Amino acid sequence: MNLTRKTLIATAFLAMPAFFATAEVKEDFVPSSKNQHGQEYPMVNSEGYARFKVNAPEANSVTVTLGLGGQGGTKLEKQADGSWTGTTAGPMDEGFHYYHLIIDGAPVNDPGTNNYFGSCRWESGIEIPAHDADFYALKNVPHGNVQQILFHSPSTDSERRAFVYTPPQYGKDGKRYPVLYLQHGWGEDETAWSSQGHANLIMDNLIAEGKIDPFIIVMTYGMTNDVKFGTIGQFTAKEFEQVLVDELVPYIDANFNTIADRDHRAMAGLSMGGIETKLITLRRPEVFGYYGLLSGGTYSPEELKDNGVKKVFVSCGSKENPDRVTSSVDELKKAGFDATSYVSPGTAHEFLTWRRSLHEMAPLLFK
Amino acid sequence: MNLTRKTLIATAFLAMPAFFATAEVKEDFVPSSKNQHGQEYPMVNSEGYARFKVNAPEANSVTVTLGLGGQGGTKLEKQADGSWTGTTAGPMDEGFHYYHLIIDGAPVNDPGTNNYFGSCRWESGIEIPAHDADFYALKNVPHGNVQQILFHSPSTDSERRAFVYTPPQYGKDGKRYPVLYLQHGWGEDETAWSSQGHANLIMDNLIAEGKIDPFIIVMTYGMTNDVKFGTIGQFTAKEFEQVLVDELVPYIDANFNTIADRDHRAMAGLSMGGIETKLITLRRPEVFGYYGLLSGGTYSPEELKDNGVKKVFVSCGSKENPDRVTSSVDELKKAGFDATSYVSPGTAHEFLTWRRSLHEMAPLLFK
Repeated sequence: MNLTRKTLIATAFLAMPAFFATAEVKEDFVPSSKNQHGQEYPMVNSEGYARFKVNAPEANSVTVTLGLGGQGGTKLEKQADGSWTGTTAGPMDEGFHYYHLIIDGAPVNDPGTNNYFGSCRWESGIEIPAHDADFYALKNVPHGNVQQILFHSPSTDSERRAFVYTPPQYGKDGKRYPVLYLQHGWGEDETAWSSQGHANLIMDNLIAEGKIDPFIIVMTYGMTNDVKFGTIGQFTAKEFEQVLVDELVPYIDANFNTIADRDHRAMAGLSMGGIETKLITLRRPEVFGYYGLLSGGTYSPEELKDNGVKKVFVSCGSKENPDRVTSSVDELKKAGFDATSYVSPGTAHEFLTWRRSLHEMAPLLFK
Repeated sequence: MNLTRKTLIATAFLAMPAFFATAEVKEDFVPSSKNQHGQEYPMVNSEGYARFKVNAPEANSVTVTLGLGGQGGTKLEKQADGSWTGTTAGPMDEGFHYYHLIIDGAPVNDPGTNNYFGSCRWESGIEIPAHDADFYALKNVPHGNVQQILFHSPSTDSERRAFVYTPPQYGKDGKRYPVLYLQHGWGEDETAWSSQGHANLIMDNLIAEGKIDPFIIVMTYGMTNDVKFGTIGQFTAKEFEQVLVDELVPYIDANFNTIADRDHRAMAGLSMGGIETKLITLRRPEVFGYYGLLSGGTYSPEELKDNGVKKVFVSCGSKENPDRVTSSVDELKKAGFDATSYVSPGTAHEFLTWRRSLHEMAPLLFK
């Protein structure tokens, strides 16, 4: 009796959290918009839960690195058909998240999703539908192009790649356009802004709604990924400055219809791309007139003194350090600078913060 | 004694194949050119062997789907450090190969390589160095751009993607260019020709060497991947014909500097893209003047009668059905058509065949 009673209590105790967790989850799951064509899993529901299913019939353990903070990801459970399934313990933040699987100790990508370059490797990606996803949706509006260019870099003795967003009327209207140089973060590369960032769709939609004057965006690799995390404080971005300012900017001005002066040239970046933006704009104020730091630090009035900057944009997610962002911009304004802060509601150091930041920053540039 | 002797003989016997196999393989392995940045494995040697290493400390079995025909891939062996390693049983054909891993029954990609869309999914890829790899190498020459475009398709009620190669002087010289519409094969998509196909580098190099008059290449998704293998014989490509001829061609002619007539428009495709090319060129001879079938069938004189085709190019690998390719072209020539056949030496139904085919076909177009 005693043993049976203990067993019953233990069973009830163990079962309860699972029962409650299951009862809470709304069963309106649909495939993530980042899945490979025709793939059902991973799925997401309207509350922000993510559900995974992986076929691994002879595996001993399958874990998804995505989950609530501090829980070490989501452990999947083996099903009778050889698949492994599981749902996050709670709702995830809206927007895009990188993740991967660990199958019997092997870090591999989820065969269900497309791949995105993050953490210095191609990773799986999932999209938790955001309430404001419309501003980066693919719509039936005039679309600009994303042009892959290859340019020669004498300083690194290599042919380097960049992507250039040209607005819908580019090349047909005979006009010249301003240019934003837009940098990715640590672990990412030149594909980030037009893939998981949807920079081209954000621009297409803003232009279609008449909310901005069109401009060109140039995205290249910021040479960030050989820098070890512990040494980012000593990172100078000097090599990248040479590639960007002395090689890529002249290439763009020679090969695209640009307005080739400081007042029509901006630099912005997310995270470590923000650090690069700050380092390079302060050292080369004659090249860029507009600066944007997206979850990538702040400027002080002292740093911008005699710099001639036209406008500063500083942003982050509400789950980062929003007070520092807003107070630094308040200080800039008090000192007479044209500065704007933006805090993305309910997001952390992730791409929805940066998509929203681009959407807020774009109408302010070149004005 | 007897036991010891038996054991010795057995040990020697078991060790021998491994010893001989090892003795045969030249130890000059280097990372595959298709690896992710900084990844050492997979490796390839000068003889065409491929060597794999995967970290999977708790796995029971790891297999690579790549290997010699009929051997079911390459089984990796567990090492003391938790990694799994193995080398193909013999040299692979030169060029690009798709593959994936099977870890305890789970089909996943090799974390060492970049991903390429093949077999209707993003797959791992490896490059066995070809003796003639120079013609698609990335060199310090003027580069054309690969432009991602998004065009509206009323017939499918969707925004569709294509990639457009524009030659180095495009847009700066005020000239209009002919256009080649170039299709991928079954299981692939619009990324194939400019990624694993290196179509842009093949063109850049041919143009730099003065071997061709520059032209534009347009690559879009051929709507091939919902067609089941067993039913390809009934495939009509009618839906794709509408997207290509009635929607994409007019979009390209309206948005790029093209010479918008049949005599300056070609269509070619590999494998199932060749089947599409044949179906569409025969039904719409007023649209395309130059035809190319790359490992994708042949034309008979009867089929091309009264069709007005300017030139036909038909190719395949020497390990496919070269006699059929060359004899069909001989028949076309006998019947008075301008036709050229090409057989890629030592290759099968894979991308080196098609890179070489494009390299051979490009100088013949629009002449």
